[in-house]
Amino acid sequence: MPKLNENYLKLENNYLFAEIAHRTAAYSEAHPDKPLIRLGIGDVTKPLSDIVVKALHDAVDDMASAESFHGYGPEQGYEATRKAIAGYYERNGVSVDADDIFISDGAKSDTGNITDMFGHDNVILIPDPVYPVYVDSNTMCGNQITYISANAENDFLPLPNHDQHVDLIYICSPNNPTGACYNKEQLKEWVDYALENEAVILFDSAYEAFISDPELPRSIYAIEGAKKCAIEFCSLSKTAGFTGTRCGYTVVPKELVFKASTGEEMSIHNMWNRRQSTKYNGTAYIIQKAAEVVFSEEGINECNQNIEYYKKNAKLIADTMTELGIRFYGGHHSPYIWFECPNGMDAWECFDYLLNEIQVVGTPGAGFGENGKNFFRLTSFGNYENTVEAMKRFKSLFAK
Amino acid sequence: MPKLNENYLKLENNYLFAEIAHRTAAYSEAHPDKPLIRLGIGDVTKPLSDIVVKALHDAVDDMASAESFHGYGPEQGYEATRKAIAGYYERNGVSVDADDIFISDGAKSDTGNITDMFGHDNVILIPDPVYPVYVDSNTMCGNQITYISANAENDFLPLPNHDQHVDLIYICSPNNPTGACYNKEQLKEWVDYALENEAVILFDSAYEAFISDPELPRSIYAIEGAKKCAIEFCSLSKTAGFTGTRCGYTVVPKELVFKASTGEEMSIHNMWNRRQSTKYNGTAYIIQKAAEVVFSEEGINECNQNIEYYKKNAKLIADTMTELGIRFYGGHHSPYIWFECPNGMDAWECFDYLLNEIQVVGTPGAGFGENGKNFFRLTSFGNYENTVEAMKRFKSLFAK
Repeated sequence: MPKLNENYLKLENNYLFAEIAHRTAAYSEAHPDKPLIRLGIGDVTKPLSDIVVKALHDAVDDMASAESFHGYGPEQGYEATRKAIAGYYERNGVSVDADDIFISDGAKSDTGNITDMFGHDNVILIPDPVYPVYVDSNTMCGNQITYISANAENDFLPLPNHDQHVDLIYICSPNNPTGACYNKEQLKEWVDYALENEAVILFDSAYEAFISDPELPRSIYAIEGAKKCAIEFCSLSKTAGFTGTRCGYTVVPKELVFKASTGEEMSIHNMWNRRQSTKYNGTAYIIQKAAEVVFSEEGINECNQNIEYYKKNAKLIADTMTELGIRFYGGHHSPYIWFECPNGMDAWECFDYLLNEIQVVGTPGAGFGENGKNFFRLTSFGNYENTVEAMKRFKSLFAK
Repeated sequence: MPKLNENYLKLENNYLFAEIAHRTAAYSEAHPDKPLIRLGIGDVTKPLSDIVVKALHDAVDDMASAESFHGYGPEQGYEATRKAIAGYYERNGVSVDADDIFISDGAKSDTGNITDMFGHDNVILIPDPVYPVYVDSNTMCGNQITYISANAENDFLPLPNHDQHVDLIYICSPNNPTGACYNKEQLKEWVDYALENEAVILFDSAYEAFISDPELPRSIYAIEGAKKCAIEFCSLSKTAGFTGTRCGYTVVPKELVFKASTGEEMSIHNMWNRRQSTKYNGTAYIIQKAAEVVFSEEGINECNQNIEYYKKNAKLIADTMTELGIRFYGGHHSPYIWFECPNGMDAWECFDYLLNEIQVVGTPGAGFGENGKNFFRLTSFGNYENTVEAMKRFKSLFAK
């Protein structure tokens, strides 16, 4: 009988979205006359931009004739796509070598698979609350996790504890679920700490396109020294509405070289290349052609129109919270608004209260970790009219 | 300093295709007047079928308007695509539950990632010669490999050794690189052995579309009892020319339940679902819509026109080998022809000889394992005219 991977027995069942669906369905069945406004889901709703649609059609046509047909592509991704991404970094003031970029089918795959690179006895620092993939992917391979508390006291932006040594550090900024975004000084503190400790930062920048303030870093590589200590994961999911089109990229700098127990030098860049060449066969040609266009100046300008739409929703929610005196995070450089449940409710009480009283569906922060137990996440991915209506109802419910 | 995954130090460098490229480039530089015929590559060359191209364009249009836009899809794949695949199985006489099918971006990802399901002290049986992913993915997670010899004596179709217990068995039929294809009785012997030993068969059927004889099994599930002991990996790469379009599927039957060391039951289906939900975010909507059409009756008929084209090439190569009295395998139910190097040459001598004498580039069998050291792989994915010319040159070179 095969021995199975018993680490899977240690995974916690993630009931969050199932429980939301269950309670929501029960309410709708009992109150068919009361339509719901859904501001819970972290998924885009606007269609792909025209320039992207055109690139997709053109690439499909390429596949329709023998002369322009594309079979297996390079596992790391087409050079033109990698160069377009490097150009996007450059326009944002950050220098990244196109050779260090790996195109994938999304940041979830890469943030999940990156555990393949590491041994099993590292000290792994993960914030609470957190995007569950970091926790589950480490649990699946039997790793121990050390949590760092993100909370109202540190504005959900925890900083390193210099008395503690760690080997791997997960950072997501702008953060999912809290919307909190590190500034340059704070990220520099993390990079300096990582360099001192010879730790590796796993930096998830999937929401960088929501950053408005040019002073806020959109990439860990905006910080000096980061190429010696950080891997960056990013995605077109939010940047270009690719949640259903599937494309992401990961930067693994060649500078990331560490010593094995044998004294031999190991390059994480080379290891990741070998992993992807063995367990991945490249992102579809059609999708990469679209990604290439996304990162052109014209493409980014078009895609930003959707981002601006979502940011208008985010601002509306944030302004409402401010007006109501509800403490919140995010909303400015993020599609997420993370607010403290009013009137001492816990997250699930707040969920039921909003559902029953004003038919607004959000996400209880408890689903993201212990520190979310009194917080609630709303997203700006709904349509504007619904968001306006939801906020009107918030005001009538919570106005003093 | 992070502990890296030192199993990567045990990986053998795969110089095969780099060495082929190197020797080929050197020859071309020295003989610019002698164009090469490339029959080495395992990649399709015919464009996508019209019906697939139309489905891709339609799906791109869906993504262009808010009403038909698709964001995150189900991690397991859209039900319509899974049902289309189940229907394809059914038309081939095999019953597979659409709920047991997981859509992916290709068989390489799934055959590589499946190691995540298992512990590290299994006896893992892998044939030699072999598709390198099975070996490398197990080496990457520190697993020991037991090789089973595929050779001319067993027609490159080894059968179980009933005196030996194993836990996991990799089988690829029709085989890459040898083209050999198991018949029903032989596969039944493997399934019976697996059931007796409570072993799991990891069955790679990526080349099933090349099987012409209705008596030869195109799926492990054509054998009774296989759902209790086998996972099947398949791909649209060869079936529909999707090497650059990226879609595959894996069948993980719910019957695959084994006991953990704690006595607790563990379902591989549920584990794989959890893995894919954590480390994968579904295959692109556009690609899945195309896959759905591939597996319609009309789609398969259109795609089969390309398969027939490649099979005509394969038959031409096989007939030439027969005429020349060169012992070979495959060619009938496979795009690959695996022949014994003539005149006592080893695989690399044969490579140089064919390159220098008749400018035909193939793949030395030595790159697939010890048992390939005197064999050579040609593929039928070239164009017909080139294949005709290559075989003409073979005849002039090897005719007695």
